[in-house]
Amino acid sequence: MAGLSAEPYKGTRDFYPEDMRIRDYIFSTWRHVVESYGYEAYDAPLLEPLDVYAAKSGQELVNEQTYQFTDRGDRRVAIRPELTPSVSRMIARKRQEVAFPARWYNIGQFMRYERPQRGREREFWQLNVDIFGVNGSKPEAEIITLGSQILQSFGADEKMYVIRINNRKVINFMMAHYLGLDTVQAQLMIKLFDRKGKIPHEAFRDQAIEIFGDAAASDGLKKIAELLAAKSMADLPESIRDSDAVREVQDLFTLLEQAGITNARFDITLMRGLDYYTGTVFEFFDTHPENNRSLFGGGRYDGLVGLFGAEPVSAVGMAPGYSMTELFLTAHNLLPVMNSSTELYMVVLPDADEGAATLAKELRQQGVKVEVDITERKVDKQLKTAIKKQIPYVIFVGESELKSKVYPLKSTADGSEEKLSFERLVSKILDRRTRSHAADDDVFDIG
Amino acid sequence: MAGLSAEPYKGTRDFYPEDMRIRDYIFSTWRHVVESYGYEAYDAPLLEPLDVYAAKSGQELVNEQTYQFTDRGDRRVAIRPELTPSVSRMIARKRQEVAFPARWYNIGQFMRYERPQRGREREFWQLNVDIFGVNGSKPEAEIITLGSQILQSFGADEKMYVIRINNRKVINFMMAHYLGLDTVQAQLMIKLFDRKGKIPHEAFRDQAIEIFGDAAASDGLKKIAELLAAKSMADLPESIRDSDAVREVQDLFTLLEQAGITNARFDITLMRGLDYYTGTVFEFFDTHPENNRSLFGGGRYDGLVGLFGAEPVSAVGMAPGYSMTELFLTAHNLLPVMNSSTELYMVVLPDADEGAATLAKELRQQGVKVEVDITERKVDKQLKTAIKKQIPYVIFVGESELKSKVYPLKSTADGSEEKLSFERLVSKILDRRTRSHAADDDVFDIG
Repeated sequence: MAGLSAEPYKGTRDFYPEDMRIRDYIFSTWRHVVESYGYEAYDAPLLEPLDVYAAKSGQELVNEQTYQFTDRGDRRVAIRPELTPSVSRMIARKRQEVAFPARWYNIGQFMRYERPQRGREREFWQLNVDIFGVNGSKPEAEIITLGSQILQSFGADEKMYVIRINNRKVINFMMAHYLGLDTVQAQLMIKLFDRKGKIPHEAFRDQAIEIFGDAAASDGLKKIAELLAAKSMADLPESIRDSDAVREVQDLFTLLEQAGITNARFDITLMRGLDYYTGTVFEFFDTHPENNRSLFGGGRYDGLVGLFGAEPVSAVGMAPGYSMTELFLTAHNLLPVMNSSTELYMVVLPDADEGAATLAKELRQQGVKVEVDITERKVDKQLKTAIKKQIPYVIFVGESELKSKVYPLKSTADGSEEKLSFERLVSKILDRRTRSHAADDDVFDIG
Repeated sequence: MAGLSAEPYKGTRDFYPEDMRIRDYIFSTWRHVVESYGYEAYDAPLLEPLDVYAAKSGQELVNEQTYQFTDRGDRRVAIRPELTPSVSRMIARKRQEVAFPARWYNIGQFMRYERPQRGREREFWQLNVDIFGVNGSKPEAEIITLGSQILQSFGADEKMYVIRINNRKVINFMMAHYLGLDTVQAQLMIKLFDRKGKIPHEAFRDQAIEIFGDAAASDGLKKIAELLAAKSMADLPESIRDSDAVREVQDLFTLLEQAGITNARFDITLMRGLDYYTGTVFEFFDTHPENNRSLFGGGRYDGLVGLFGAEPVSAVGMAPGYSMTELFLTAHNLLPVMNSSTELYMVVLPDADEGAATLAKELRQQGVKVEVDITERKVDKQLKTAIKKQIPYVIFVGESELKSKVYPLKSTADGSEEKLSFERLVSKILDRRTRSHAADDDVFDIG
């Protein structure tokens, strides 16, 4: 039986308490911001029938990246690689009961079989935020504003990221009417644009020629060059600029300006990989030279709910990921130092067990998070444990302290010691918590 | 593409916002109680190599109940059916770095392929709480006290549940020295005792006879009857009562008494299904006539960490489940009425969009959770949405309100209306939150 590996499964990660503090901080901040906008928590199952993804999520995701298998009842299922199809299914299932507009969020875990790399693991966590039941640019402006608010709640400013915006209708118009491509060619060209930042310039050019075909290639490449040179909507070729689709984009920019967003810009090359988008698509992009990458994105997907046998419902959403957020915060030096969630470690002297247990109970009734040492080790060993655990305060409890009801309290941060009554001990610890909490009702603890 | 099913995958459950409020309430209460005892959050991956469970979790769980498959890299893996092997692996992996005693907790999701039934779904959520690195009865007493504290934090009293306690060493002594069984027979008898409450009396008798063999059956059945008649440790046959193993149990009962636990009792028939237990095993049992079942359990498992190539570490833990907790709270009428996490719904009158957005921003800066209606519908439709969402307050914002800075606030609970300044509006809503929060730093909201 010996020799089981202690390593986690490939592409996954163990979260030890010190890692988990950071994850809890990020999740709590997400929750705090989206709830302040009136979004409510929901959850969907970990497994869905494979069909749910086959419908609209795109070939690559389904065929190459899902963890899929046949269950003991012969059903073909997948571990969720994303949440958008599941939440669309849930909306369809209770189309009549749900109060629209519905503002829903979820913080959950997902799996994709990809080559593990920095910021991209096989098991990952995402915040999904969606509005259902509102047409027009207002929900899109709200979701983008919320994305911005989330980053700023972590301490980011608008120089640290840019928001790239495009629209699938603009893309479709451009493919069909400006580049003159048929549906199959357009699909290929969209995938090629999507990979543009990741492949060499020559590869992009060669593949574009292949899509256009020899006869149309030279004219097509010229038009693409013109598109790529456009730095704003005003620079776009006239036929695109005057389309209804572009007017929709202009509406959105007006609303974002009203909301005080100054770092959004139109980007005709932005595609977003997933097949289900039908209108606005957007991406938050890190501007840090060492972390110059897409942070998260989203868009409008009006066709998905209707696939589950219900009347269509319009939908806009986004999904910031945990690992990308951690990389962003690390690159910009925005991660706070995190202490243990435990506030007080009780070092117990000989023959003080029962008294210590009673004192701990009383402290807990006052709201203090207290760990009691039950090892009967020497005082210095007990103290060392508290320091290693990064618990801010240590209290020493022996027979004389229990008798005098005055307790020596040591700060592990600066080593200072003072003797306090029960009441002053409690208020000292609760005061620290109030000071260190960034938000008013969060569970995290910032040291 | 039409006709995808809107139902969740068999044995799983969709959590709509109104279901999620209950789940968040239960999770928050769990988190609050275990953190008050100094337990810190951690997490392990969703998938583990199948070997991890094959080692010690028991044949039934591994062969019949795991969701297992071969991944794209030809590794045999399972979706975690429980967390104890994973956390043991994590402790083994950082045996040198972890500060012992380690008090760890996790709230996570799991899957088992079982026949779905009341309180038992294929996808389920559990709180796992464990202490690593302490021998003796103290950690066992702490974990059991914590289980009791968790139920009482939901409003339960000691009459609503009983705690059954046994010890694997007592079981082994009883099987070998009292019933005279060899190892194979003992293993079968343990499984039979474990199923005792679930099978008819005759089936239990017949299977016991089969295990003893014809020659020993009559004497064996008499001894079992004597065991089952024992209502306390004092009633046990003398040879068992005087064993070292029973003295360990007596120690534990002394500590539980000191901790004020009055509803624990020794139960020689309690086995617990998992193979890895090495000492104390216990189970919390609902006493409600309509929900007379095991709520959750746990025990000591000193052998698991050592399987992962590290020096052994002693361990005690338990795992209350979400569905069982929900059934318990429902049966005893302990579930509070839950409102939306959103506190204020903003009904927006014509031409007040921009002013409403600014007001919402100011309210959020004061900590209010506010949803803005962006549909441009009639006032009564907007109001209806707020009521359907169970949001406690509605504010009406039009041009005149924005000018006078006095806002009509309606309570959806009693329909009362009053006109308030910004400051009074904020303090009214934040006061309600303070009143309705059971605990001081939780994220849930009880209406």
